Amino acid sequence: MNDDLLAKIRLIRSPSIGPVTFRQLLTRFGTAEAALAAIPDLAARGGGKAPAIASQATAKAEAERVEKLGARYLALGQGLYPRLLAELPAAPPLLIAKGDFGLLDRQAVAIVGARNASAAACRFARGLAHDLGEQGLAVVSGLARGIDAAAHDGALATGTIGIVAGGIDIFYPPENEERQCAMFERGLVIAEMPPGTEPRARHFPYRNRIIAGISLGTIVVEAAPKSGSLITARLAAEAGREVMAVPGSPLDPRAQGCNQLIREGATLVQTAADVMESIRPMDSRVQSASAPYEPAPQEAGDADADARRSVEQLLGPSPVPVDELVRLSGQPSGAVQMVLLELDLAGRLDRHAGGRVSLR
Amino acid sequence: MNDDLLAKIRLIRSPSIGPVTFRQLLTRFGTAEAALAAIPDLAARGGGKAPAIASQATAKAEAERVEKLGARYLALGQGLYPRLLAELPAAPPLLIAKGDFGLLDRQAVAIVGARNASAAACRFARGLAHDLGEQGLAVVSGLARGIDAAAHDGALATGTIGIVAGGIDIFYPPENEERQCAMFERGLVIAEMPPGTEPRARHFPYRNRIIAGISLGTIVVEAAPKSGSLITARLAAEAGREVMAVPGSPLDPRAQGCNQLIREGATLVQTAADVMESIRPMDSRVQSASAPYEPAPQEAGDADADARRSVEQLLGPSPVPVDELVRLSGQPSGAVQMVLLELDLAGRLDRHAGGRVSLR
Repeated sequence: MNDDLLAKIRLIRSPSIGPVTFRQLLTRFGTAEAALAAIPDLAARGGGKAPAIASQATAKAEAERVEKLGARYLALGQGLYPRLLAELPAAPPLLIAKGDFGLLDRQAVAIVGARNASAAACRFARGLAHDLGEQGLAVVSGLARGIDAAAHDGALATGTIGIVAGGIDIFYPPENEERQCAMFERGLVIAEMPPGTEPRARHFPYRNRIIAGISLGTIVVEAAPKSGSLITARLAAEAGREVMAVPGSPLDPRAQGCNQLIREGATLVQTAADVMESIRPMDSRVQSASAPYEPAPQEAGDADADARRSVEQLLGPSPVPVDELVRLSGQPSGAVQMVLLELDLAGRLDRHAGGRVSLR
Repeated sequence: MNDDLLAKIRLIRSPSIGPVTFRQLLTRFGTAEAALAAIPDLAARGGGKAPAIASQATAKAEAERVEKLGARYLALGQGLYPRLLAELPAAPPLLIAKGDFGLLDRQAVAIVGARNASAAACRFARGLAHDLGEQGLAVVSGLARGIDAAAHDGALATGTIGIVAGGIDIFYPPENEERQCAMFERGLVIAEMPPGTEPRARHFPYRNRIIAGISLGTIVVEAAPKSGSLITARLAAEAGREVMAVPGSPLDPRAQGCNQLIREGATLVQTAADVMESIRPMDSRVQSASAPYEPAPQEAGDADADARRSVEQLLGPSPVPVDELVRLSGQPSGAVQMVLLELDLAGRLDRHAGGRVSLR
């Protein structure tokens, strides 16, 4: 068993280390093993005690379970890890995937929508997924009821990727078992959480960021206002991806979310041709994309007492952008990042959306 | 009876004088009477014989009929003539109107759509018209079946303007008689054609330009691709007005036209509030608009033989923009316009959309 992989599992399964902290640590220390070794000192300098770290045994048990399930890990910055997903600042450091890994080489587009969608909308989603599959795209969705299920079914023959909120061996909702098993064989299923994890409410937005992040664009079919599908659309927009929506009558409450998205600038799509036209500019961006993300040690940015004092003084309970801390402190960016990493590992920092931080 | 009005009627009812030629003549000669007197000479210089001009008796008979119908004329550049409509290069020189002229002081928005619209869409149009009326807008439409009728009905209590393609005393379709009569009493009905004119196919696009031209914006509700409603939307866009469309399911063929409009940049609207938000920028433009259009003699631009030869040489059967003729001929703009007016009245010129002209 691969020591680097085990070290990565230990890091990311540690309760206080999230994807952003993980990425900071890898960027600083080059390897997960070096990061693990550095954590106690970092936490001490941050003024706290070392965070609990997942044990080697826990990591090994997880890796063995993944292997036994016939799944494998995809590590950020390595091999098959989806290139577009790696662009997200909070990209999952590790994914667990089972199925046809060849689908990761395809350009992907997400189809998401309401769990309680109308029969007509489900039929539409199935047809659209089928047509996009015929165009050579992998169709991504969240293996939920309704639109998600229809999208997977429509593209099962051509290639579909399902992102689950819980462990890869958990079927949620239960009636998806047959579909998910079919996708183990003929599609691809991806999970961020370790095997056996029952999905909880907080896991769904994490799942949604993967759906949006892995795809050139996200198509919303029938979504209520304030629904999870709209969160996925927002995450896609934040990641600079295409947001597309299928319109509906103003008299149909289930069309409100999509119509609102279109009013806010999403592209109205009715056919696979509309979708292809919409993602073409993204497409060329991907063709010319740089090599996959590789963590590499930055110029050493060790923090001295002066940097620590200065950054801590500027921090408070209100989230502030890291850029602003650098500017206001007058300290080198590397030193500020290091102070933040120390505070983070000492359990004294909260990281927020948009690269903002606050003292806990 | 007003001599100026009779002269205007004679001019515009002359078969070879359209709205653009009318406007050119008024601009040149200041009054319709002076234009009538100048026409024979102009035509001779253009190398043809004088066009047939409607007789004084014909004009008088029409004016008497209009008066007897309880209608009145609105002349471009004068009094109550709708200010936004006057901005169109091919604005009708004369309108015949019957009803509540106070509605011409209101800001107006058009609601148009399919004659064979679904019951749901008609109900929607009626509700939207009602809500826009409550906001103080006059609701404009074309007194056709379907969406038009629903829009008029929804705004009958607050104020609605119907533009008919034929004469003001013609009820087309016949089942509209009751509605049109109600609008004589409580709304306003406007016609470009003289009383007694049965509407023909070519009249409908003329009618549509008035609907688009009189309104701050045009809302399309359920329209088939290539329908008249989309022509109205295009005319509104060309006039710099807001184009709005109500979306529908891609599975509904009657939603195709509106969805396509939205893809092409029309604003998706679902409620009166959406419409109000969309027309607000136009609204302020209207508030600050200059005084109504007044025809006034330009600096004399008589054409000499040199200008005539030069412009005629540049003209051919393919339409060319007038601007280009001015540039290529090296002649003053006024002289080129005069040559074109001469050729026009001599029956040798065709005027096309977008200010282009060709030799007949």
